[in-house]
Amino acid sequence: MELLNKLQWRYATKAMDPTRPVAQDKIDRIIEAARLAPTSSGLQPYEILVIKNPALRAQIREVAWNQAQVTDASHLLVFAAWDDYTPERINHMFDLTNEVRGFRNEGWEAYRQQLLSTYPGRGAQVNFEHAARQAYIGFGAAVIAAAFEEVDATPMEGFDPAAVDGILKLREQHLRSVVMLPLGYRQAEQDWLVNLPKVRRPLDQFVTEVD
Amino acid sequence: MELLNKLQWRYATKAMDPTRPVAQDKIDRIIEAARLAPTSSGLQPYEILVIKNPALRAQIREVAWNQAQVTDASHLLVFAAWDDYTPERINHMFDLTNEVRGFRNEGWEAYRQQLLSTYPGRGAQVNFEHAARQAYIGFGAAVIAAAFEEVDATPMEGFDPAAVDGILKLREQHLRSVVMLPLGYRQAEQDWLVNLPKVRRPLDQFVTEVD
Repeated sequence: MELLNKLQWRYATKAMDPTRPVAQDKIDRIIEAARLAPTSSGLQPYEILVIKNPALRAQIREVAWNQAQVTDASHLLVFAAWDDYTPERINHMFDLTNEVRGFRNEGWEAYRQQLLSTYPGRGAQVNFEHAARQAYIGFGAAVIAAAFEEVDATPMEGFDPAAVDGILKLREQHLRSVVMLPLGYRQAEQDWLVNLPKVRRPLDQFVTEVD
Repeated sequence: MELLNKLQWRYATKAMDPTRPVAQDKIDRIIEAARLAPTSSGLQPYEILVIKNPALRAQIREVAWNQAQVTDASHLLVFAAWDDYTPERINHMFDLTNEVRGFRNEGWEAYRQQLLSTYPGRGAQVNFEHAARQAYIGFGAAVIAAAFEEVDATPMEGFDPAAVDGILKLREQHLRSVVMLPLGYRQAEQDWLVNLPKVRRPLDQFVTEVD
């Protein structure tokens, strides 16, 4: 399967070539893969910020263990999850669904009421953690899409989320950063990881069949 | 990009054909995609259980809102995250890396010590939530891989995780269920969702460019 080849090809790029930009149509398709990825109840409870501003990138690097990919990569994607599920956000997605499909459905409306009567009351932290998990599905799709575009990427959790939230003013938008994805092209001769074998637990430590 | 076509093709299958099994080589490649997906520090802090036992599937269905896919699908994957990061688990992955790569590296060993001195002390709940996010990356990869295999799948959070943990004795294995993925073939004539358009927020509500 071609997908497995792409997953074998990709690696967490440690050195990005600061002189090689990624074409916009590739970035667009990487983001589209995230947009199409499934999320719980279809709520898509996160957004992606594409950071191009060099000054902001430099500030983010300072709170990301000085990782050079933050500034050397062509583009920096920041995945930011909803800080909470609110009635407004839930209603927006259900209304959008009705609009796209052109009808209201009793079962769907009952499901809306079920979410409205449970999600907001769970508390912001529970809801944020739930939203963050959904963001990781889209993040995974973006990582895979980058490999399909032969664009290098660095899955990156090594940063201070509260500090990034401050730099990008995310909390004011009721968002919280959860993971970042620098996109660019590897600078192979300066990348200590590029030629090392990928390490994964063997299948018998990863999968259990329950017959 | 073919990936986008696959993402457009897939949908959260509501009716699975109980008479059509999925070939084992397809299941193997779907799991392999999850195994190859990236995780934070490469720890792969989750496992996949493939539930074939019909009695267990029936029990799980009872704690999963009676969703028929749980028993009608050909295979049921349960993604179970580590309940905590322990020194043993961290050391195991660092030791495996050294074994596969054939050498010990000072920087890598320093990174091991950094994780050992921080992760276990964060508390089980924080670590479980972190591990769960990583499981969602692999889950996203498995959803995409199923689409590449033209196997239908139902991303499923609608179940009582504690009850599933009990049925599968996961807590005794220091695992906690986070998300499930029935795999099979759609029974189109009984599936209310199969012909409805996919709904996603438009790009301008999903992505922000920060120049």
